[in-house]
Amino acid sequence: MLNSIGHIFKLTTFGESHGAGIGGVIDGCPANVPLDLGKIQEELNRRKPGQSKIVTQRKEPDEVEFLSGIFEGKTTGTPIGFLIRNTNQKTKDYGHNQDVYRPSHADFTYDKKYGIRDHRGGGRSSARETANWVVAGAVAKQLLPEMQIQAYVSSVGEIALNKDYQSLNLAQTESNIVRCPDAEIAEQMIEKIQEVRKAGDTIGGTVSCVIKNVPIGLGEPVFDKLHARLGHAMLSINAVKGFEYGSGFGASKMLGSEHNDLFTPDGKTKTNFSGGIQGGISNGMDIYFNVAFKPVATLIQTQPTINSKGEEVLMMGKGRHDPCVVPRAVPIVEALAAIVMLDSVLLNKTRTL
Amino acid sequence: MLNSIGHIFKLTTFGESHGAGIGGVIDGCPANVPLDLGKIQEELNRRKPGQSKIVTQRKEPDEVEFLSGIFEGKTTGTPIGFLIRNTNQKTKDYGHNQDVYRPSHADFTYDKKYGIRDHRGGGRSSARETANWVVAGAVAKQLLPEMQIQAYVSSVGEIALNKDYQSLNLAQTESNIVRCPDAEIAEQMIEKIQEVRKAGDTIGGTVSCVIKNVPIGLGEPVFDKLHARLGHAMLSINAVKGFEYGSGFGASKMLGSEHNDLFTPDGKTKTNFSGGIQGGISNGMDIYFNVAFKPVATLIQTQPTINSKGEEVLMMGKGRHDPCVVPRAVPIVEALAAIVMLDSVLLNKTRTL
Amino acid sequence: MLNSIGHIFKLTTFGESHGAGIGGVIDGCPANVPLDLGKIQEELNRRKPGQSKIVTQRKEPDEVEFLSGIFEGKTTGTPIGFLIRNTNQKTKDYGHNQDVYRPSHADFTYDKKYGIRDHRGGGRSSARETANWVVAGAVAKQLLPEMQIQAYVSSVGEIALNKDYQSLNLAQTESNIVRCPDAEIAEQMIEKIQEVRKAGDTIGGTVSCVIKNVPIGLGEPVFDKLHARLGHAMLSINAVKGFEYGSGFGASKMLGSEHNDLFTPDGKTKTNFSGGIQGGISNGMDIYFNVAFKPVATLIQTQPTINSKGEEVLMMGKGRHDPCVVPRAVPIVEALAAIVMLDSVLLNKTRTL
Amino acid sequence: MLNSIGHIFKLTTFGESHGAGIGGVIDGCPANVPLDLGKIQEELNRRKPGQSKIVTQRKEPDEVEFLSGIFEGKTTGTPIGFLIRNTNQKTKDYGHNQDVYRPSHADFTYDKKYGIRDHRGGGRSSARETANWVVAGAVAKQLLPEMQIQAYVSSVGEIALNKDYQSLNLAQTESNIVRCPDAEIAEQMIEKIQEVRKAGDTIGGTVSCVIKNVPIGLGEPVFDKLHARLGHAMLSINAVKGFEYGSGFGASKMLGSEHNDLFTPDGKTKTNFSGGIQGGISNGMDIYFNVAFKPVATLIQTQPTINSKGEEVLMMGKGRHDPCVVPRAVPIVEALAAIVMLDSVLLNKTRTL
Repeated sequence: MLNSIGHIFKLTTFGESHGAGIGGVIDGCPANVPLDLGKIQEELNRRKPGQSKIVTQRKEPDEVEFLSGIFEGKTTGTPIGFLIRNTNQKTKDYGHNQDVYRPSHADFTYDKKYGIRDHRGGGRSSARETANWVVAGAVAKQLLPEMQIQAYVSSVGEIALNKDYQSLNLAQTESNIVRCPDAEIAEQMIEKIQEVRKAGDTIGGTVSCVIKNVPIGLGEPVFDKLHARLGHAMLSINAVKGFEYGSGFGASKMLGSEHNDLFTPDGKTKTNFSGGIQGGISNGMDIYFNVAFKPVATLIQTQPTINSKGEEVLMMGKGRHDPCVVPRAVPIVEALAAIVMLDSVLLNKTRTL
Repeated sequence: MLNSIGHIFKLTTFGESHGAGIGGVIDGCPANVPLDLGKIQEELNRRKPGQSKIVTQRKEPDEVEFLSGIFEGKTTGTPIGFLIRNTNQKTKDYGHNQDVYRPSHADFTYDKKYGIRDHRGGGRSSARETANWVVAGAVAKQLLPEMQIQAYVSSVGEIALNKDYQSLNLAQTESNIVRCPDAEIAEQMIEKIQEVRKAGDTIGGTVSCVIKNVPIGLGEPVFDKLHARLGHAMLSINAVKGFEYGSGFGASKMLGSEHNDLFTPDGKTKTNFSGGIQGGISNGMDIYFNVAFKPVATLIQTQPTINSKGEEVLMMGKGRHDPCVVPRAVPIVEALAAIVMLDSVLLNKTRTL
Repeated sequence: MLNSIGHIFKLTTFGESHGAGIGGVIDGCPANVPLDLGKIQEELNRRKPGQSKIVTQRKEPDEVEFLSGIFEGKTTGTPIGFLIRNTNQKTKDYGHNQDVYRPSHADFTYDKKYGIRDHRGGGRSSARETANWVVAGAVAKQLLPEMQIQAYVSSVGEIALNKDYQSLNLAQTESNIVRCPDAEIAEQMIEKIQEVRKAGDTIGGTVSCVIKNVPIGLGEPVFDKLHARLGHAMLSINAVKGFEYGSGFGASKMLGSEHNDLFTPDGKTKTNFSGGIQGGISNGMDIYFNVAFKPVATLIQTQPTINSKGEEVLMMGKGRHDPCVVPRAVPIVEALAAIVMLDSVLLNKTRTL
Repeated sequence: MLNSIGHIFKLTTFGESHGAGIGGVIDGCPANVPLDLGKIQEELNRRKPGQSKIVTQRKEPDEVEFLSGIFEGKTTGTPIGFLIRNTNQKTKDYGHNQDVYRPSHADFTYDKKYGIRDHRGGGRSSARETANWVVAGAVAKQLLPEMQIQAYVSSVGEIALNKDYQSLNLAQTESNIVRCPDAEIAEQMIEKIQEVRKAGDTIGGTVSCVIKNVPIGLGEPVFDKLHARLGHAMLSINAVKGFEYGSGFGASKMLGSEHNDLFTPDGKTKTNFSGGIQGGISNGMDIYFNVAFKPVATLIQTQPTINSKGEEVLMMGKGRHDPCVVPRAVPIVEALAAIVMLDSVLLNKTRTL
């Protein structure tokens, strides 16, 4: 609810892009599990700005400090508080737009909803918040050592991978800056993003994610179906406009006789249109899903807009912008998936005595 | 969580397809609001089996009995308990498949998860559960008299409407049995479903939904974004494989300079790629979204499968089946949307003093 | 929240004293556990009106019907819906008081809060609701076969047991109608209640409860401390004004050197001032607590009061009244304790991997 | 749940006594309300160690840093993150007891529950956590400017105030270090505590609390009754063993004809045995309740105990101890009451349209 995700393994976050910092509390983390804090920072580094030429050049170290819940390298079962200080809060960069509602941003809706708005930047609606999720997701991943959660960029604008994940070598995902596991397509994507960037424009894309080695039985009917929880999490990411799993939107064009995952005697299925989930519960097959991102709204272009008095004004886009968010979204998708999966594992422990 | 949806206006449901009945408790319903119980039954009738030649011919009156929370035609603010008795529980119809895992159903996952399964039918995984949601949604609708929540069938298999909702007359939706507001396309859809039905097969489709007259400010960052809640609700419907809102998956192919909802001085936007939601909060423009349904798995065909001992068996599909679920899904989509919208209205009341 | 108790094993209830019935949904019940439905009805019979000469003579069979979640005598892991029909709704008995706020009842507060009130009786504020809790508690008890949860009447008015529970034979509790395990004191209590009853008056009392064979480790810091959850549950019972556990209010007069539970080498403690809970977590020693009940407010006496227009009126108390609620409160205290304990057991399963 | 309190105005906390710090997230705080941060620090100062000769002499500045959710002196509606650094973490003070279970502490139960324990001090079970509650309570108080929430020490050991709150001048509470509004009794209490302190012992006591100017209608049947929520909150405070409201345990000895709050025509009541709450809902009269604290377990005495291997050892109590916690508990009781009351106000806003 509001700023929390998870029922048992529960993350509650705080923080604005231009305040003192961001952070959160991870409640319900199982006790007595070793945590490698270095690996958590590594995940943050995969998300952080300035990591390559195709993402925003804003400099932000994104160093996480753990405040509680970890003792001598292990979780203690008490809440894990953490803090990421903001170090790059050039408020004056934003002063010229103080009273302006940037189009396709959340300025207008926040102001109308709350009657007040932190106009120093995106505030709470900034994607900076996602760094908190990456911290919690990195913790969750370490508590799910068997499970493999791998996301990758499957399209940038019209440049699409168009391959089943089975035919890809997902170990290659991190070998290029766009995080597409096909080197050739990756090159085209990088070129496209650079072109868009030079134009001061942005471009959308999709991230795909595969989860392997999933135990049978995760997910709770009827309002905690595993895919509904994954969908909810993914739709919480800034700029996401759609989610599909397994056969996805394509299923709407199919016949039941085609879309039929027949069993093999060991309980596996010959095909996997179901995407590893049947009746909301994991069946042990791979889970896979796609997440659609719109092009983000910060352009380095002059745009007409309005201010809070309803006056028409011209807004100068300047400074650094993120031409395509999907490369940095890869660790975010993985993090949220890890949170949902771990929470589902814990919840499932309560379903039998 | 588990079998509940909503934070404030909260529905908790129970019931299996072949038990005594289904029902639920609506907690947190605002007090002192008149309720027209006849309208609630009308919504149930839109969902019920046997309503036309293109849906399952199972006979089930789906009469709801209200047990509490309503006094002299008004809500009292106390929980509304309700019950829909099952009247058509021919358990023996299912006996021949008692030990068999039907492919692409939830038999296997329920059995593995819980160690026990109500093999008389779909049990809890049956779409019969959605009747409960229609009851609660019909209550919610009456508490949102200004808001218009209108769903319709936008595709059946390859037969797609391919029109913006603005160009449609949504008042025509109920004028045909497939619930497509374009008479010509509706006719093609009906023919297709009949053809599929004769083959003992099923077919997928999509339902689109438009919500008009939405107040500005609904939805709560960051994990109760309005679209994430709608997505979660829609992904909870049986057979749903995907959700997109506003520009949806198409947005992933667009440039930021194209996908830009510029303001008019009154705070509205010239375009509405955002789908009425910015930063997770409603901006007063129409909300619209699409939901993808796979073809359901009950076929009137003989299929190879396994039983709980892992033995390969042949399964005879017989009896009545639902060749295409999307016509009956229309009131379900509306009901869940109404629950989410009302809950968001109530939650929003707490965000200022 | 509102009408739900429990995080994992979660009961949500509905129903008014004079509507169609009361009931609820038990969500999160572990699967594949045998349930003896007869034992559940026995618990209801311990609570039901008319069971002896010292309780209300209202006739109400309190027969529970299970609607879902149980199959071939076992829980299925799906929600357990249940219904207890009201059979004794003589609305006209109450008509003479329709517009009157009975003193020390909830009539006034309900009317002011909700703007509407079901004036046929206590409505939702009636202790009839506690029958729902007894159903869920009886289910919980069967899932905790090792644990012994035993409540008893420890005082009626000034007549107090004044003995440690260790010196009592709790197996004697059900051997008399007042449910006090000391036969002599029980006799005095029964006489007192009969005297009070003849005067059309009511009298308060206390219920004590002991929980044995509690596993170490139940309860979650800091806002799910085991005793805080027990206290919350007990304070939810109609007419309860106080809760204390272990040394209770007496502890406020003690020195730390007196109030000190020293360990024996096996991890048990020599004394048990702590009441089986330290730092909010069970330590394996017996849990014990006391619950204080005020005399209920329904008198068979004429009283001055006001109506909803603020006019002073005389109210005639007539019909049947409950001179002392504590005998019937015994199964209610046990039921809520069982719900809290089972929920704590389930929650504790998630605290380690 | 776990480390959160509140449904809408929701505090989630973290932190151990000897880690980097403690803190929390206040989610659901209404937007656009001015906050005086100085007043929040003042409340913390009322709780902090070393404030007088009768409390622990540990030095800890308890300075709170706000990290988010406040902009230009007003709440923004986004989560308020805050941090109180630990500055006095002399871990070596505790090293000699590293493996020892201190009697009547939470060492044993934490170790058994989690399989790991932060042995540097009380860790999460330390009353240091209550500083977090005081921060959130101080925020809540500022959002309830009309309501008066006043706690005071009503007994220390056998020295009891024994006066109705109406006969006390609660404005005098802060005029002495023990926070008892009767100067004479206060003096006796202070002497007693000093005597106990010299003996290296501790002593229990009670805190009473009065809430005035409460709107009618707060509290939600049946499991969010206002007094049950207050009781739950108070029982969450370290060392609390009992809670009673209104007539409390005394009610168990009364007749219904005595314990009867008759109305005056304006809807007030002539007496207030009910303690301002009827049917779980505030009736506009003063709310009052008592909280019983045991003597805390840290003694400056040598005690026999066991270590984690089950060996009997002698434990030297040394350093600083808190001879009586009730003076410092006064702001804690007020803080939790404020959180519950504000949350109830917000929840009540959703009960009508």
